[in-house]
Amino acid sequence: MPDNRAEAPLRSAEIDGASSPLQTPCLLLDEARLRANLAGMRAHLDRLGVTLRPHLKTAKSIDVARLAMAGPAGPAMVSTLREAEYFAEGGVRDMIYGVGIAPQKLDRVGAIRRRWGADLAVVLDSIEQADAVAAWAARTGDRLPVLIEVDADGHRSGVKPADAALLVAIGRALGAGADLRGVLLHAGDSYGLSDPEDLAAAAEAERAAAVTAATLLRGAGLPCPVVSVGSTPTARYARDLAGVTEVRAGVFMFGDLFQAGVGSVAVDDIAVSVLATVIGHRRDKGWIITDAGWMALSRDRGTARQAVDQGYGVVCDRAGRPYPDLIVADANQEHGILALRPGSRAALPELAIGDRVRVLPNHACATGAQYDRYHVLDADGRVAAVWPRINGW
Amino acid sequence: MPDNRAEAPLRSAEIDGASSPLQTPCLLLDEARLRANLAGMRAHLDRLGVTLRPHLKTAKSIDVARLAMAGPAGPAMVSTLREAEYFAEGGVRDMIYGVGIAPQKLDRVGAIRRRWGADLAVVLDSIEQADAVAAWAARTGDRLPVLIEVDADGHRSGVKPADAALLVAIGRALGAGADLRGVLLHAGDSYGLSDPEDLAAAAEAERAAAVTAATLLRGAGLPCPVVSVGSTPTARYARDLAGVTEVRAGVFMFGDLFQAGVGSVAVDDIAVSVLATVIGHRRDKGWIITDAGWMALSRDRGTARQAVDQGYGVVCDRAGRPYPDLIVADANQEHGILALRPGSRAALPELAIGDRVRVLPNHACATGAQYDRYHVLDADGRVAAVWPRINGW
Repeated sequence: MPDNRAEAPLRSAEIDGASSPLQTPCLLLDEARLRANLAGMRAHLDRLGVTLRPHLKTAKSIDVARLAMAGPAGPAMVSTLREAEYFAEGGVRDMIYGVGIAPQKLDRVGAIRRRWGADLAVVLDSIEQADAVAAWAARTGDRLPVLIEVDADGHRSGVKPADAALLVAIGRALGAGADLRGVLLHAGDSYGLSDPEDLAAAAEAERAAAVTAATLLRGAGLPCPVVSVGSTPTARYARDLAGVTEVRAGVFMFGDLFQAGVGSVAVDDIAVSVLATVIGHRRDKGWIITDAGWMALSRDRGTARQAVDQGYGVVCDRAGRPYPDLIVADANQEHGILALRPGSRAALPELAIGDRVRVLPNHACATGAQYDRYHVLDADGRVAAVWPRINGW
Repeated sequence: MPDNRAEAPLRSAEIDGASSPLQTPCLLLDEARLRANLAGMRAHLDRLGVTLRPHLKTAKSIDVARLAMAGPAGPAMVSTLREAEYFAEGGVRDMIYGVGIAPQKLDRVGAIRRRWGADLAVVLDSIEQADAVAAWAARTGDRLPVLIEVDADGHRSGVKPADAALLVAIGRALGAGADLRGVLLHAGDSYGLSDPEDLAAAAEAERAAAVTAATLLRGAGLPCPVVSVGSTPTARYARDLAGVTEVRAGVFMFGDLFQAGVGSVAVDDIAVSVLATVIGHRRDKGWIITDAGWMALSRDRGTARQAVDQGYGVVCDRAGRPYPDLIVADANQEHGILALRPGSRAALPELAIGDRVRVLPNHACATGAQYDRYHVLDADGRVAAVWPRINGW
């Protein structure tokens, strides 16, 4: 199939103007902001004495992974086995697949471990899964590493941290054939917070739950070398991580409006944006129409539940500076409707047909998934590289 | 990259059970339901004496397009130039690109027209765009076909149907270099309706607006051979289409819960579903956890604004029969949380780890876009084919 977005001509390309080879919508990534976000998190976790295990579910790009990881082999976190395959092919060796393992997926996990010699671990939270893993390990002879998922805050999955009976039963069910690595927690409820004190408390609760579970396992004579916690908000607001060995976080690399609403990043730190072209006006309604609809921005409306509803995104000029009060107020599949926030007294900017704008997304994970590449901006705001990314399972 | 979902072994595969080669989440397409939906719409529009121009933005698959189109060359509607390229490569020749044209895209449109000899038309609603098209046509000698977008209901773009001055000015600005084909309308506000009488009225309003605009153009001595209207709800509820030459609709082929809420399709007609695997339980909360989160289902929550909020989707057994009151109540990136509807007195089904369920999506366009292929089910509920699909721009 022809692809007018071939990579070669886009190096050192303008994002706007008659000479720009970019087709819109496309996904821009500001490399300086990405590097600054990574450096900030690394320095913070260095101070707390724990390892960063970057979650690659947001970026899904080996180029981003290499900037994010401590070394080319990891450690890293993945959310799909397709990511595990892709990153293993790219040289990553130390990975945890973070979605509770289904028995049908064990053969694929084993294939990744064998083919690339990858240390790919799985997570689980039930005796049924532990029995399946033990049977699989006995059949294949592969000593699969396993982390027991522990519930930090009632958000989703996991054994309750003080449920010694279940924790120990799962550990024992794994038997000698599998390799019990430790415990893993994710304080997902932190996404609903925004007060720094509440966020620090959520981080401390996540840490305390992790240490409780690890202590119970060790007390029963079971190994627990790894104590893994994380979410972008709790990683950012943790003040003490005693007893924790590693922190997982992903969306902090790019940032987005939702995380800005939580307080995990600043709007000016957001490294990804969608480049869109103005295709029309409805002056009677105060609308500017672009070619970036919800297919380009994603259907994520997470900020609708926050103090500031950002619609489908904040609209910036070509340099990435937000226009006062201009948001993507509504979106159809391939149309974005730009309008001022309700009640705003700002003036609608004069944007002509063919002009380009950049949209900061609500949710970097969801928006990124609509694309197969990043157009990477250098310090001059020109496209200096094209980095592929993957999707799917 | 390795791909454990290679196509060959999946032909005539079970979707469940120990021998199933399917990895979850994946997208199932019930071919019999697809064919019935297509036959129903075709019969309805035949009775009304108008041509169906199927919108391929939902399916993005040449295999589906060939079932939907009157012939292998079309007619068809596309929402991106990438679709236009892909379908042209697959033999489709009569296409309209339905998003208001940006001047920067004209060279790509011209390349598609030349390379495949495709009759690819564009739409616009301003004199600025018409001037750009006229200049481009004069420069290239390509007599580009153009439809003027007319606003049916204030939903999005388009010239007001009675604005004779603007309609005629756009038609004249196109000049002799371009090929004014007619008018195009989309009654997008029909998505917010559900009463059959209101839907019939919306269809009639769309028709009347189209005929008004066409009459004005013709009265000014401008050509208007094509009078194109459409949306799935108005296509379904139109009772008379006098003066209209063609109807565009796309999502009706697959159906989804949102369209079921409008009344355009029945839940039992929905042809697409996401296959998911149970990976855990939170019995204290009445939750069943699967590996199909919002990445697999999309972030679309369109039914939240309808009379029945379907969460992130309706949960069915492996045969596609809905479990009483079981929906995807919440979703994280790669986790779906199944629960009974609030207030339900149904029993939570007994689903063990490794069991598979099918989820009917809120919005087929958004859910489909998360996948690169359909697993096509035959009458026995087995995967009989794998049909690729495209995404992106």
